[in-house]
Amino acid sequence: MDLPLSGTVVLDLSQIYNGPYATFMMAAAGAEVIKIEPPGGEHMRRRTVDKGPRLPYAMLNAGKRSLCLDLKTAAGRDILLRLAEGADVLVENFAPGVMDKLGLGQAAVRARNPRLVYASSSGYGADGPYRDYPAMDLTVQAMSGIMSVTGYPGEPPLKAGPALCDFNAGVHLYGAIVTALLQRARTGRGGAVEVSMLEASYFSLASNLGMIYAEPDRPYARTGNRHGGLTLCPYNVYPARDGHIAIIVNHEEHWKSLLTAFGQEALIGDPRYSSMQKRASRMDEVDALVTSWTQPFARDELFARLVAHRVACAPVRELVEVMHDPHLHARGALRWVEHPEYGRIAAAASPLRFDGQALLPESPSVPLGADSRAILREKLALSDAELDSLSASAVI
Amino acid sequence: MDLPLSGTVVLDLSQIYNGPYATFMMAAAGAEVIKIEPPGGEHMRRRTVDKGPRLPYAMLNAGKRSLCLDLKTAAGRDILLRLAEGADVLVENFAPGVMDKLGLGQAAVRARNPRLVYASSSGYGADGPYRDYPAMDLTVQAMSGIMSVTGYPGEPPLKAGPALCDFNAGVHLYGAIVTALLQRARTGRGGAVEVSMLEASYFSLASNLGMIYAEPDRPYARTGNRHGGLTLCPYNVYPARDGHIAIIVNHEEHWKSLLTAFGQEALIGDPRYSSMQKRASRMDEVDALVTSWTQPFARDELFARLVAHRVACAPVRELVEVMHDPHLHARGALRWVEHPEYGRIAAAASPLRFDGQALLPESPSVPLGADSRAILREKLALSDAELDSLSASAVI
Repeated sequence: MDLPLSGTVVLDLSQIYNGPYATFMMAAAGAEVIKIEPPGGEHMRRRTVDKGPRLPYAMLNAGKRSLCLDLKTAAGRDILLRLAEGADVLVENFAPGVMDKLGLGQAAVRARNPRLVYASSSGYGADGPYRDYPAMDLTVQAMSGIMSVTGYPGEPPLKAGPALCDFNAGVHLYGAIVTALLQRARTGRGGAVEVSMLEASYFSLASNLGMIYAEPDRPYARTGNRHGGLTLCPYNVYPARDGHIAIIVNHEEHWKSLLTAFGQEALIGDPRYSSMQKRASRMDEVDALVTSWTQPFARDELFARLVAHRVACAPVRELVEVMHDPHLHARGALRWVEHPEYGRIAAAASPLRFDGQALLPESPSVPLGADSRAILREKLALSDAELDSLSASAVI
Repeated sequence: MDLPLSGTVVLDLSQIYNGPYATFMMAAAGAEVIKIEPPGGEHMRRRTVDKGPRLPYAMLNAGKRSLCLDLKTAAGRDILLRLAEGADVLVENFAPGVMDKLGLGQAAVRARNPRLVYASSSGYGADGPYRDYPAMDLTVQAMSGIMSVTGYPGEPPLKAGPALCDFNAGVHLYGAIVTALLQRARTGRGGAVEVSMLEASYFSLASNLGMIYAEPDRPYARTGNRHGGLTLCPYNVYPARDGHIAIIVNHEEHWKSLLTAFGQEALIGDPRYSSMQKRASRMDEVDALVTSWTQPFARDELFARLVAHRVACAPVRELVEVMHDPHLHARGALRWVEHPEYGRIAAAASPLRFDGQALLPESPSVPLGADSRAILREKLALSDAELDSLSASAVI
């Protein structure tokens, strides 16, 4: 099948979420991704002694080939450089400086192949005063200000549940790599691309940053589930009998629809609530009213009723519901597959759709080094004797 | 200057954050982005009667040209189709079906230009049972399960502060568009690409999904700032005298470093705390200990001390600090500029760096319709008389 990235060879030295998410989307779009891991495997694979990381490992590494290679040996580094001669992209998300110390920095690798795109991602970037600060999703959530805008007023700052700084960086890295490949198609030259987790998270705070800009002297306060600027009301997460529902009223028509949905037509035009500004000034009172209307209903019944009245809302779903979501399965975004190592899992397609297709690599993630010999035979024409010797000295 | 997307012409019909973030990164990478807005401007521009949205509007629309065009008129739709004949990409993030109803769906537009990449993004996608559900950042945060994993155990689910579902979709959309352009460079054919906000947010929950997979019978509990699996300890946000600091202990060396940093060497090897498992089983006690050590210090003093001891940590920063961050300014990720309409702002570069460069468009966002006549003269060779007539009938 001709896929968008068919024919592109990627050397993937990345680990955990950031780089692997970028290369997962490349694999789903048709690239040949060679995942290169040290003896013992990358962090996520090693963590699979707990069962928790198995699903994420399988999700992110489907469609990739596995080469186990010890870059701490001269022979291992030599193999990597020789592979780079025939590759289109190298991806790494080690701490800045690690690849240079190995003699595998972008200058060294690109000297062997000027057409190569060398892609790096780290917490704070390859230079600047914070280059060497420890960076994981939690620390970048702290540093980026994400925690400062999550949680309730008067309570401590709070992390967002998803590993969003890691994944923000990964998807930006994907974009940077493909852009450099597009430029190469025109110029014939590769290049180096870079994404920092901190910078990749900045724009998502645009709305919150706008409030500081608008009122520089007002200290920024967290608002729980309420509107960040406290100017829209109702705007909150309201209780149902068996869960919660998020509701937003953006303009007066929505307010009328909400009242109608709950049989509260008597309040239409009530001067206490007849404008967004008035409702926002009585936010506690309005939220208490809405709560009294939502609480008696079951969540899904509430959602159906409100959607029928064209109120902007959504049920707060548990992850187990999302994983079994009929919509995501109908769209091909999720598919139940039997994973040879981990059993039945919900495999997820790349969120990038081409001509309506959700692309999910056909091959599941493979055991460490499963393709080591095949890859080196194909790409470097190594003989069985050479492979045996590399294997005996634990280079592969 | 030769930039990666130089020569690429983008018709940008998108609004708020999702599409505009994708096209902002395209503009920063050198594309000619023509932002097409209805009379009155897109939502974000209209919202600029409040000051809050001004900074986000300026951040996201720098480097774009502005064409005001009324697509509710036949003349406006005709102009759009003629512009599409000479364009490389069309981007829209209306609700599914809106473009079709206007006669501007992908089949109609691509019939005029088979090389065009037609890019769409919406909350739940162009098909499937949820296609027409109301979608905004808050509702997709509810629907995706993000809220269900944010907040404290026993308390209601909570939204993440940033508009992360909107921006997740926008950056995925960028990746999809550039991938389709790369495929076109090989095949000569354009295509249609699509991203849904729900799908674009799914992978960031991989870690949380892994826990469900590992323990399907245990109900998922929110964990505040603690480790999602409650297996790492210390792992939390701890109080300082003047703020908070996030600390993670990933292995035993980190624990020893933490003890040493606080002069608590006496606890090294203490059997109550001598393994991750033991500490995790006494999480409240360990967190109280760490709190007693962190609380007397100023946040930044604490950070310097812990980093010197190689403890993984970061200060929880306020957004105003992030906006003034010397690191981001040193890296060129942020730059103070004088915006002609909005005054001094921190303009943000694209998070995608090519050969070390942070790309920030030189031209600031412009007033609605600022380039209408120039664009139609250049692209469609319209005469002044034709332009006057379109203007008189409020088409442009």
